Amino acid sequence: MVSTVDRPSARRPGGRTARVRAQILSATAELVARDGIAGFRYEEVAELAGVHKTSVYRNWPDREELVVEALLQYADDLGSVADTGDLRRDLVDFLMALAESLGRPTARALVLATQAAHESPTVRRAATRILEVRGAGMRSRVDLAVDRGELPPVDRSLFGEMLSGPVHLIVNRGIRPFTRADAERIVDVVLAGIRATTPPT
Amino acid sequence: MVSTVDRPSARRPGGRTARVRAQILSATAELVARDGIAGFRYEEVAELAGVHKTSVYRNWPDREELVVEALLQYADDLGSVADTGDLRRDLVDFLMALAESLGRPTARALVLATQAAHESPTVRRAATRILEVRGAGMRSRVDLAVDRGELPPVDRSLFGEMLSGPVHLIVNRGIRPFTRADAERIVDVVLAGIRATTPPT
Repeated sequence: MVSTVDRPSARRPGGRTARVRAQILSATAELVARDGIAGFRYEEVAELAGVHKTSVYRNWPDREELVVEALLQYADDLGSVADTGDLRRDLVDFLMALAESLGRPTARALVLATQAAHESPTVRRAATRILEVRGAGMRSRVDLAVDRGELPPVDRSLFGEMLSGPVHLIVNRGIRPFTRADAERIVDVVLAGIRATTPPT
Repeated sequence: MVSTVDRPSARRPGGRTARVRAQILSATAELVARDGIAGFRYEEVAELAGVHKTSVYRNWPDREELVVEALLQYADDLGSVADTGDLRRDLVDFLMALAESLGRPTARALVLATQAAHESPTVRRAATRILEVRGAGMRSRVDLAVDRGELPPVDRSLFGEMLSGPVHLIVNRGIRPFTRADAERIVDVVLAGIRATTPPT
């Protein structure tokens, strides 16, 4: 008997297919994070996703395409930086969300992909694009702050790197947890430093 | 005929052995950077180092020990942060040296090792220790600056992470080169931000 209960996966035609795809992509991200782009195996993806390996091969005959789609899942998680009107709070919230997301397998896979130039230029390009999407959310929020006069005009790339870089370092190194106090201190120092070092126009 | 010319490798007994060891360790770092800790092969280390593979097996029967020693080479490169009396200049020079070193295979291997918790806790611990050595050089320089009243008392770990984090992010991402202007801007913003946000004592 086919139930008509409104399970998320039953809401639209192709729900099961979509779920299987999502499982395969999550499993891929996890295994890329563990074994690298060159190292992960289709058989293990299938096993971890709980599907037959032909489902993986049929949908993604190309290995790099599978990795790129797995990384793209991460792009959906990024969202934009909120605009509550309080720049400090929005940036602190963004750094907390970033720290949380960096702990997930997809993010680790993404970091490996951007660093592993030798492994696949295609994958590296895709990973770089995904990271640019995230950077764009930050840049829009900074533009708003500059328009409102909360922040002097600023090199938005370096501003984003100064906020995000310490978060990446702390989370990836894993020596200590990244806390809200860290996020607040980083945002306060960078905002005060930008204001103190930008000549008045 | 054995020459007495003062070649670096002939300066002391064991020069050849030392050279072979260095070649093996460099080759290991390069292959770990490429293939990961679990992926690199002794045969390829020997080939890249130009030695017979028994030289590798005999000296490092334990795979993790080989990786740890290869990573320790990096510790020798770190040195300490110079003290010219000019804090800004010393920190800018340190960030430039950091950016240069992060581009080398040993550094990439080190980054992989700290991120690859699943692969080897032993290697991860060693990599973390090596990074702490580098952090210690920075902390000593910061202490001097605080003693001299150039800088207010500061959380030295977070201070180091705020300076180094953006460098790691820019170099690892590889979208644009890391320039001296970047290093100067980072140091200026962080120093001004620390001074502006630390309440007078």
